[in-house]
Amino acid sequence: MSSQPIANQPPTQDELDLLNYQSRIERPVKMKIPELERNERLRHVIFSGQFTVDMLEDLADTADKIRVLSKSRSGQDFLLSLLHHKRAMLYFTQPSTRTFLSFMAACQILGITCNEVRDPTTSSETKGETRFDSLRMFSSYFDLIIMRSKLAKLAESCAYLMNDLESSGNRSVPIINAGSGADQHPTQALLDIYTLQRSFQFAEGKTSTVATRFEELRRNYPELSKGLTNKVYGFCGDIGRGRTVRSLASLLSKYEGVTLIFIAPNDPTLALRDDLRKLLLDRGVKTLEVESFDDSVDGVPVIESLDALYMTRIQKEHNAPGDAEKFATIDLSRYKLTANLVARMKKYAPILHPFPRDQHFGEIPPEIDDDPRAMYFRQARNGMWIRSALLASVFGVDHQIARFFHDEYSEWHHYNEDAASASTA
Amino acid sequence: MSSQPIANQPPTQDELDLLNYQSRIERPVKMKIPELERNERLRHVIFSGQFTVDMLEDLADTADKIRVLSKSRSGQDFLLSLLHHKRAMLYFTQPSTRTFLSFMAACQILGITCNEVRDPTTSSETKGETRFDSLRMFSSYFDLIIMRSKLAKLAESCAYLMNDLESSGNRSVPIINAGSGADQHPTQALLDIYTLQRSFQFAEGKTSTVATRFEELRRNYPELSKGLTNKVYGFCGDIGRGRTVRSLASLLSKYEGVTLIFIAPNDPTLALRDDLRKLLLDRGVKTLEVESFDDSVDGVPVIESLDALYMTRIQKEHNAPGDAEKFATIDLSRYKLTANLVARMKKYAPILHPFPRDQHFGEIPPEIDDDPRAMYFRQARNGMWIRSALLASVFGVDHQIARFFHDEYSEWHHYNEDAASASTA
Amino acid sequence: MSSQPIANQPPTQDELDLLNYQSRIERPVKMKIPELERNERLRHVIFSGQFTVDMLEDLADTADKIRVLSKSRSGQDFLLSLLHHKRAMLYFTQPSTRTFLSFMAACQILGITCNEVRDPTTSSETKGETRFDSLRMFSSYFDLIIMRSKLAKLAESCAYLMNDLESSGNRSVPIINAGSGADQHPTQALLDIYTLQRSFQFAEGKTSTVATRFEELRRNYPELSKGLTNKVYGFCGDIGRGRTVRSLASLLSKYEGVTLIFIAPNDPTLALRDDLRKLLLDRGVKTLEVESFDDSVDGVPVIESLDALYMTRIQKEHNAPGDAEKFATIDLSRYKLTANLVARMKKYAPILHPFPRDQHFGEIPPEIDDDPRAMYFRQARNGMWIRSALLASVFGVDHQIARFFHDEYSEWHHYNEDAASASTA
Repeated sequence: MSSQPIANQPPTQDELDLLNYQSRIERPVKMKIPELERNERLRHVIFSGQFTVDMLEDLADTADKIRVLSKSRSGQDFLLSLLHHKRAMLYFTQPSTRTFLSFMAACQILGITCNEVRDPTTSSETKGETRFDSLRMFSSYFDLIIMRSKLAKLAESCAYLMNDLESSGNRSVPIINAGSGADQHPTQALLDIYTLQRSFQFAEGKTSTVATRFEELRRNYPELSKGLTNKVYGFCGDIGRGRTVRSLASLLSKYEGVTLIFIAPNDPTLALRDDLRKLLLDRGVKTLEVESFDDSVDGVPVIESLDALYMTRIQKEHNAPGDAEKFATIDLSRYKLTANLVARMKKYAPILHPFPRDQHFGEIPPEIDDDPRAMYFRQARNGMWIRSALLASVFGVDHQIARFFHDEYSEWHHYNEDAASASTA
Repeated sequence: MSSQPIANQPPTQDELDLLNYQSRIERPVKMKIPELERNERLRHVIFSGQFTVDMLEDLADTADKIRVLSKSRSGQDFLLSLLHHKRAMLYFTQPSTRTFLSFMAACQILGITCNEVRDPTTSSETKGETRFDSLRMFSSYFDLIIMRSKLAKLAESCAYLMNDLESSGNRSVPIINAGSGADQHPTQALLDIYTLQRSFQFAEGKTSTVATRFEELRRNYPELSKGLTNKVYGFCGDIGRGRTVRSLASLLSKYEGVTLIFIAPNDPTLALRDDLRKLLLDRGVKTLEVESFDDSVDGVPVIESLDALYMTRIQKEHNAPGDAEKFATIDLSRYKLTANLVARMKKYAPILHPFPRDQHFGEIPPEIDDDPRAMYFRQARNGMWIRSALLASVFGVDHQIARFFHDEYSEWHHYNEDAASASTA
Repeated sequence: MSSQPIANQPPTQDELDLLNYQSRIERPVKMKIPELERNERLRHVIFSGQFTVDMLEDLADTADKIRVLSKSRSGQDFLLSLLHHKRAMLYFTQPSTRTFLSFMAACQILGITCNEVRDPTTSSETKGETRFDSLRMFSSYFDLIIMRSKLAKLAESCAYLMNDLESSGNRSVPIINAGSGADQHPTQALLDIYTLQRSFQFAEGKTSTVATRFEELRRNYPELSKGLTNKVYGFCGDIGRGRTVRSLASLLSKYEGVTLIFIAPNDPTLALRDDLRKLLLDRGVKTLEVESFDDSVDGVPVIESLDALYMTRIQKEHNAPGDAEKFATIDLSRYKLTANLVARMKKYAPILHPFPRDQHFGEIPPEIDDDPRAMYFRQARNGMWIRSALLASVFGVDHQIARFFHDEYSEWHHYNEDAASASTA
């Protein structure tokens, strides 16, 4: 897929297959989205642009219910029975322990049996099999393919293959993109959004009453509102190469009244890229770029103005030749969080990080881990719940979850109690 | 196992273990078959010669029922409950993603929990453990061993080990051979036969009525009959090194009135081997060898006379030194299928291929994939169903499947409908 | 963890994390044990010193019940339902097929879904993630971590991490040590003890009556008693480097009136180490060291005086430079069992071996395998049952097992029958 046909050699079938999908891949996103849906429901999950604000709210609602149900044995047994008859293939030719295990757990919560292929070269490929023959084999044995690949458009192409099979009356299964090259990682964006959604409910995690922190916070922050709209989001670190920053910023831009502040060195590799800046401007999002947490925005230092902070790792494994030398001349220490900076943040502002964090660079030192605003460990568990919700939606059992939940937790009061006590689960 | 004792060195226990089984391995197949059965039921599945025509019909019948049951949630739940208490070990020291995943799915359909060892050198072996100590360990933890090995007789030896343990009152589990060297791959032969059995039912896949294509076809082919008897089977490509050709031809020879035509270069590596030719002649099978699809048999070009065509890949990874140079002098393009050739085939004649196919050689170009006679993608799914049927038989739950099926689908009429609509599943 | 900070370089977070736990690790065992328990029940299983004689009896009792229940479909279904809602992570960065598969099977018996990380370098670690960030991620997705590592104190440190998380109101899961460096392998000790417990019941395996071999044996051995107390235990081979010898000897020292005889070369690498000798003397255990099975103890050759014999493999993979040359001067053949030696042993004395055995050294030649005293293959299956019992205890479902067992097998008589016939299962 990545290789160009060598001059004077006929193209391989792998190359021809990709050319076959090229024209569909190059269409505007808007034209593609309907092909990835069935009956206004996600069929294939390929890029984060597929998620509407309504979908994000529905998915969060399902995830909240799955989380609460998972606290009782009867709820667990119900969830485990839902998709007990489904078998998933996790085709992870680009390694990622974290994403892999998160999807495994998400599947297992709903009873889905998991299978995996993680070796980039399966034995069949060494025998000359095309990628699409391999993928079609997987679709023969399994009911869902969750795939992660270095090839930027493989997941999207695979969704079109499945659509073509469906059209010709053949077996076809849903495709979920678990990361495709530097391109898309839609379920990571989903878990980031879900973590923000939960944070901005302002529920009091540790109490068993329905009282929430919201009223208390409003005394200090009179303009504070629930939900993701009208908030200031900061992104710090490797903005240029951060696929998760890209996807999350793009999703946040769909919410009303948001401000996005990018805190990064003024360096073409690390700073905001032109295409994302253009996308945000086109959508009319207030977008700011600064070089330090101490830079002022409307007279207030950035660190004090944020409603949420998204930290990232400097992805040195993607350094181009010369980058290391160039970065040595930049004061990168400004893109590390410190206890002093955290002390200046708003009392409720969640700190996120897509993880892993880098112990050697230290963008988030461990002394911050115990701060109640540190959300990065909860993000992992949130990722599991929201991926379960996504699977439930793709297989159309989300309504069953809502019904069961309603029967078990008929009073809202009761639910809120459990949701509150679940927030540390 | 493969290595000879070095002069002046005492043999290792691994070598002694094999010598221990050597005399049993060298017996005629007829003497061995009863030892691999219990109460006229397969206990260990080691070579395709164990399957009688009656067994093949019973297994196909069970596979058809599993396929239909898998279309409803109640059927799936019944199947999943059948062997929920069993744990399988997939011991695949010779890699094969395709066979491995097919067995995984086949197990999972019946609720069997799968475990795997795929690394050729387990840590215990590096500590000096014998193969048979390792296999006996697996039999301590699991209820079934499915094994694939480069060692030609390992699965058979292992079956004898299990029999010996049984005789001495010890724990013993069934062994299923998922490919042993260049020797045997009995479940591949099973899925090829099952694909032919389904093809020669001549059911109309896409309609929901009981009407079939058979009557329609008879108008053009008055001598056409249902089933595998009295048919002409073509095998094309790497006949000499094709383990699947070997096994399938051997099984087909058990059916009445079959003709086998081998289409291969006149080359000692690629052409029909003496031992298989002798076996077919001993059984009185009409056997023909030609070098091209256009060669005439009884005045008709081969391609037009076939009731079924089995294509194969040139297994260049098994080339001996000098083979590549030798093959360069042969016109191998004659062993590739083309749209023109397919157009000349009988309207019903299924095209099979054990897969993977080779995109670089191109023995089946993708433009043929949409032809209704192309069975090679369905073969994969057939393999899953027939392996499930085999597991059900080994564990003695095939009668339970028949009973449940009868209760759910009490009218034959109803069954036929579903079976027909299942054929594209 | 193993590496020392390099001079002039600041310590890494991995190193700081370990220093953080160092003072807790260095406390006497007695102070640590309560922290690894909750409500007088094991929470984390880190070292064999945690097991009291009462616990060992309870675990054996649960294991016996699981074994019997596993012989009926209703029992299996009950067991499978117990922890169906739990997900385990098997984090095996030090390979061990045998221990890994045993834990897999033990989990599966109780319905626990297993996940694994076996590659020593997860992708996250290559991105600079600390070990403890990885482990905390696992605890986000899974309900139990079973870990095996080359790092001596990693499992213990991880238990403290989980305790700290629990204290601060965060999610925390149990840790089970499946082998930590040369240090501890508590569940191996458990299965060795369980094999002795079963052997010293003196039940007659093959009969279906309640009669046992005990009365018959007493005619020849008038002082014979049931249970582990007042017995003579021999350990032969690589005593110095045998982690399993260490753990088992330490557990046996908790039983009344035991004598431990170590049969090993008088060599500082292979002979009993000072620290274990001191521990046994401190506990007042009668401890003898000899160089041959023929050495006399109280006028009787060792081989004839043993109530049980624990054989071991010479762990040549742990040889220091010069060891191979040094060992070549020792007559190691004296530390191999022979049919003649076995013939001189007491009629009931079980022969154990932690396995794998070494086919090249031959410490137990295969001709002994059929002797009824050979327990080493049964040890593997015992390991599976006792690990299941341990998991049942950690998750607090052992009482449910006892209750179900009581309801199904209400008469003790009935139970004994099944237990007896189960002994070969």
